[in-house]
Amino acid sequence: MTLHSDRIFNPDPTIRKIARELYTEVKDLPLISPHGHVNPQIFAENKPFPDPAELFIIPDHYVFRMLYSQGVAMESLGVPTIDGSDVELDHRKIWQCFAENFYLFAGTPTGIWLTHEFTEVFGINEKLNGKNATVIYDILQDRLQSSEFLPKTLYKHFNIEVLITTDGASDALNHHIKIQQSDWGGRVIPCFRPDAVVNITDDSWKKEIENLGKAAKIEINSYTKFIKAIEDRRAYFKSMGAVSTDQGIISPYTHQLTVREADTIFQRALQGKATDEDAALFTANMLMEMARMSIEDGLVMQIHPGSFRNHNKTIFNKFGIDKGCDIPLQTEYTGNLYELLNKYGNDTRLTLVVFTLDESTYARELAPLAGHYPAMKLGPAWWFHDSIEGMTRFKERVIETAGIYNTVGFNDDTRAFVSIPARHDLSRRIDTNFLAGLVARHIIDMDDAQKMAHALAYDLAKITYKL
Amino acid sequence: MTLHSDRIFNPDPTIRKIARELYTEVKDLPLISPHGHVNPQIFAENKPFPDPAELFIIPDHYVFRMLYSQGVAMESLGVPTIDGSDVELDHRKIWQCFAENFYLFAGTPTGIWLTHEFTEVFGINEKLNGKNATVIYDILQDRLQSSEFLPKTLYKHFNIEVLITTDGASDALNHHIKIQQSDWGGRVIPCFRPDAVVNITDDSWKKEIENLGKAAKIEINSYTKFIKAIEDRRAYFKSMGAVSTDQGIISPYTHQLTVREADTIFQRALQGKATDEDAALFTANMLMEMARMSIEDGLVMQIHPGSFRNHNKTIFNKFGIDKGCDIPLQTEYTGNLYELLNKYGNDTRLTLVVFTLDESTYARELAPLAGHYPAMKLGPAWWFHDSIEGMTRFKERVIETAGIYNTVGFNDDTRAFVSIPARHDLSRRIDTNFLAGLVARHIIDMDDAQKMAHALAYDLAKITYKL
Amino acid sequence: MTLHSDRIFNPDPTIRKIARELYTEVKDLPLISPHGHVNPQIFAENKPFPDPAELFIIPDHYVFRMLYSQGVAMESLGVPTIDGSDVELDHRKIWQCFAENFYLFAGTPTGIWLTHEFTEVFGINEKLNGKNATVIYDILQDRLQSSEFLPKTLYKHFNIEVLITTDGASDALNHHIKIQQSDWGGRVIPCFRPDAVVNITDDSWKKEIENLGKAAKIEINSYTKFIKAIEDRRAYFKSMGAVSTDQGIISPYTHQLTVREADTIFQRALQGKATDEDAALFTANMLMEMARMSIEDGLVMQIHPGSFRNHNKTIFNKFGIDKGCDIPLQTEYTGNLYELLNKYGNDTRLTLVVFTLDESTYARELAPLAGHYPAMKLGPAWWFHDSIEGMTRFKERVIETAGIYNTVGFNDDTRAFVSIPARHDLSRRIDTNFLAGLVARHIIDMDDAQKMAHALAYDLAKITYKL
Repeated sequence: MTLHSDRIFNPDPTIRKIARELYTEVKDLPLISPHGHVNPQIFAENKPFPDPAELFIIPDHYVFRMLYSQGVAMESLGVPTIDGSDVELDHRKIWQCFAENFYLFAGTPTGIWLTHEFTEVFGINEKLNGKNATVIYDILQDRLQSSEFLPKTLYKHFNIEVLITTDGASDALNHHIKIQQSDWGGRVIPCFRPDAVVNITDDSWKKEIENLGKAAKIEINSYTKFIKAIEDRRAYFKSMGAVSTDQGIISPYTHQLTVREADTIFQRALQGKATDEDAALFTANMLMEMARMSIEDGLVMQIHPGSFRNHNKTIFNKFGIDKGCDIPLQTEYTGNLYELLNKYGNDTRLTLVVFTLDESTYARELAPLAGHYPAMKLGPAWWFHDSIEGMTRFKERVIETAGIYNTVGFNDDTRAFVSIPARHDLSRRIDTNFLAGLVARHIIDMDDAQKMAHALAYDLAKITYKL
Repeated sequence: MTLHSDRIFNPDPTIRKIARELYTEVKDLPLISPHGHVNPQIFAENKPFPDPAELFIIPDHYVFRMLYSQGVAMESLGVPTIDGSDVELDHRKIWQCFAENFYLFAGTPTGIWLTHEFTEVFGINEKLNGKNATVIYDILQDRLQSSEFLPKTLYKHFNIEVLITTDGASDALNHHIKIQQSDWGGRVIPCFRPDAVVNITDDSWKKEIENLGKAAKIEINSYTKFIKAIEDRRAYFKSMGAVSTDQGIISPYTHQLTVREADTIFQRALQGKATDEDAALFTANMLMEMARMSIEDGLVMQIHPGSFRNHNKTIFNKFGIDKGCDIPLQTEYTGNLYELLNKYGNDTRLTLVVFTLDESTYARELAPLAGHYPAMKLGPAWWFHDSIEGMTRFKERVIETAGIYNTVGFNDDTRAFVSIPARHDLSRRIDTNFLAGLVARHIIDMDDAQKMAHALAYDLAKITYKL
Repeated sequence: MTLHSDRIFNPDPTIRKIARELYTEVKDLPLISPHGHVNPQIFAENKPFPDPAELFIIPDHYVFRMLYSQGVAMESLGVPTIDGSDVELDHRKIWQCFAENFYLFAGTPTGIWLTHEFTEVFGINEKLNGKNATVIYDILQDRLQSSEFLPKTLYKHFNIEVLITTDGASDALNHHIKIQQSDWGGRVIPCFRPDAVVNITDDSWKKEIENLGKAAKIEINSYTKFIKAIEDRRAYFKSMGAVSTDQGIISPYTHQLTVREADTIFQRALQGKATDEDAALFTANMLMEMARMSIEDGLVMQIHPGSFRNHNKTIFNKFGIDKGCDIPLQTEYTGNLYELLNKYGNDTRLTLVVFTLDESTYARELAPLAGHYPAMKLGPAWWFHDSIEGMTRFKERVIETAGIYNTVGFNDDTRAFVSIPARHDLSRRIDTNFLAGLVARHIIDMDDAQKMAHALAYDLAKITYKL
């Protein structure tokens, strides 16, 4: 098994030839990873990844959710339980189960990424199955112990220019401090994500507010002090190199509350009496406030709306968050972003990067909004849509109205560090193939296509995120 | 006019070559028809189909709705009226009108199916038009009188392995009994569809409840007895070979009522006082109950939501149901299925096959749900979307997230028995062409593609429906 | 820079060859422009277009919104302000800015149209950029002064058969009178668009009602008189050659009010006390009334729902309407059109042409509705979707259910007169390419394809709009 050099490209000879040419020009550009969930600890500690199951299966909800959907118990895949109850501890057994079910990923981006990782990163040249599972486990295990496969070495080997993590508002950023204090040349920087202190009806909210207060050295007993603490933490993140914020929200509804209104809700929340409507209004107001702060401090504002988190309560209660049961919701932008865009959308100091899990909004709402408001840009195809067909649909629906220059290039958005080259390679192939289709139909010329390919692969991310 | 052996396949030589190869391997597999609306009476009686108009036009809402949309009166197409008022009785005249308008179907699946039926089943080698209408009518009429074209003979000729009908909760299944008692080897089995006894605000509901009571030999004067009757009828259907249930619903909203709540609504319904909200809640509760029963008795549960039935009241009042005026509605699954999936979605004893008329939910809601919950599978592209582009969109939007193994293969879902081979052939061509596109782009290899083609054409339906 | 003769066509040799053949047969057919926003004044006066900036940039919201989205101030593009405050007056400077940013349009329909206009209409053979901006400005300016480029001459040169404008209910149609009284052979006819007198909560409504009263010579102090005035104006428009009406609405909700209910709302509106709900109901009722009137006077009824007009209030307040900040909304048709279609949808005297900005409704709602109701037809892909991918998606989602004969061919819907040939050429290329794809896959034969290409390019518009 080797990766075909023409993979992903349209088999039409005209398109494929152009795609190859465009791809060749961008494939070796450094990787900019402006949004993702890699744990900075791996660079702070630079220890070997423990074993193949620990690297590829146990922490990866893309992988275990597919096996779970086919009736494989989460416990048998070693996914740790909240209460510490038993799960499979034999990682070879976990790997065997995964290998026997690897065929499930045929035609999925996870299958493509894993195949890329196995072949290109780890030099495996057989397709994984139940029979060769042990042999491949041994090879991988062997590789993982070698210094070539330490996180910092892989970072360089992967040709990463900058990698942005996602960090809670109260995070002391100790791993980032350690990374920055080391003499390693890698650029790993934090992103400010205040969801835990914004979601006033979450069980953990009061604890999170306490942590925020400690981090900001403010006793947070009012909305005003809460805002002050947020501003302080943003300043701290910025001092640590941050260039951006991010918010995961159910709905992108935006609405400015008066300080009095916001404080009334805040006080109710402190008493544990906030309602769902309070929470929705508080979030809507915080989007307005985060935009205001971004104009003031220059941090790029990102929003990721529309995920119904932890839809499966049985799984959530036993295993916790990020277990493959976050399900997208229909999302509305034209009305919901109205207030924010009317107040701040004409301000060129703001960069608001909007993501969606609802593809029906690409051509209908998002491209027209981004194709008009100077502050608004479109994040790439996200999560379930970060796939061959998904990225292609994004391009087909967005570019005709917004052009490529109102998009922000590629985000890998991954927790799986070793998948980063696979994801960027896939994106670059899809983009150059897409552009090749335009050239082959004489919609753009080769000169345009080359510039656009470079922009999509590198420039747009760099410029948007001020890197 | 002949059918081109490469029809439907992408003209790109690389893709077409692979598609041909994959198609060759699956084209002769037996047909499994696990959901549809063929009348079992045709096999019980095994009489010749009366004439071409009676076979192709008068009962087929796909056909007459298109002519109606272009201004041809339903009466002139011989569609029978409820009150018995006059309609065209000259079937040659009806056929002539159809033939003159056959060009309207160019580019539609109905056009493709009919062309396949005319050429492959009936050996007609001219494209139907106003001039050759009579000649073709005569040929067809002649064929229909021959023993080769009797329903049971066609069933064998079509290479059908199993055909599932759709039957009301109170149906005595007399046709099925007669089929089973005959020495014919065909497998025609019922599917339990209780809509008529679930829809408490329908005019006919009380009558339906009476029929249900008679069928189950229970006096249904309470919700508890209603549930008991449903359970009894499921058991009867199962004893008659049934492997599945089906429900047509407006919304897939699921919600468990207490027995007391359900009975309160039931009593109001018995008094003819149920409201629309009552009906919605009662249906939501029945979805929960049907899931519970499926776990207990092992019947596969199917749901078909999102059709606004009988949108055109003028047509409905004059001609009744199924007259081409059922119009899809936007449908939501993530929130609506929440309660059912949380209660039963982790139970591997349940198989819940979900269909949709709202393609925007494929990638946004349905694939993520089916790609996580063990109990949930995705039914194929349904009704208006059971077409070349529609099936292709389904594949493109579903497989990257859910894989093919969380789908259930193909359902022809037809009332038109003689269209079954055409529909399966179209599906097999689209699937192999789709897979060929993946192979040509080196996303999957030929070995994967062959297994996937076989699964989509045969295995998945057989396994899902426990056949 | 020249336009490639195969542009837009699929590069697959089989498809391209067929597409060329089909395109050759339709490319020179006369242009029918049955819906658009060209100002009739240009034909009434037949004066030279002032200069390139005035022709291509200042009035074209497709152009300046893209530059604005990238941070170019509207003022610097010479877009006139409502209060007359300063904007750039140096049109060469405006042109220079546009030229420097012309790369933003790569891959957009605006880019394609402009390139077509520059090369085919004005004979420019270089791609516009910052360096050649002045030279190209001079060439264009020179051309614009020549008699060859006068509006009436271009109309003939463009091979336009009929061009329909869009005109307010109270418009005296003086330009149309002047055009008709001239001995020029061009056919430019009005379309009746009563939005301004229907939107009862608009600030300008009372003024508009006064104008309507003057135009109809009726003192409009009641709903009944309002309706009478509308009927009078329709009659006047019809006497001036009009064949159609049009309505821009937020939602396609239809509902018949009693005269008393309508008058109660009307009286509240006259007192400036109408609510948003009043406005929604009044519009819903007016859609019913307009359908009734269409049945009586034979004017084709068009509706364009789903645009959130003037989303950016800062821009609206400074520059007014049509400034690139109209953003689509999710739109529902199945329920909203229920009342209108039930009352009038079976009446073959009515032609209701429905447009949408919500592509998710194409296959889900619009094609099933148009594929059933005799009165309903589908307008082509509109506005943001009037693009290569957008028109292709429309065809792929609509035709399989509705066929092409329930669509109305192409509308250019443009304000930019000189873009008309570019838009029709693009549409004809996309349609023939689409049909070629069907032929190449043996879904339709060449004979079907030729008829369908002719219908889409010419016949359907001519027949639908009774031209």
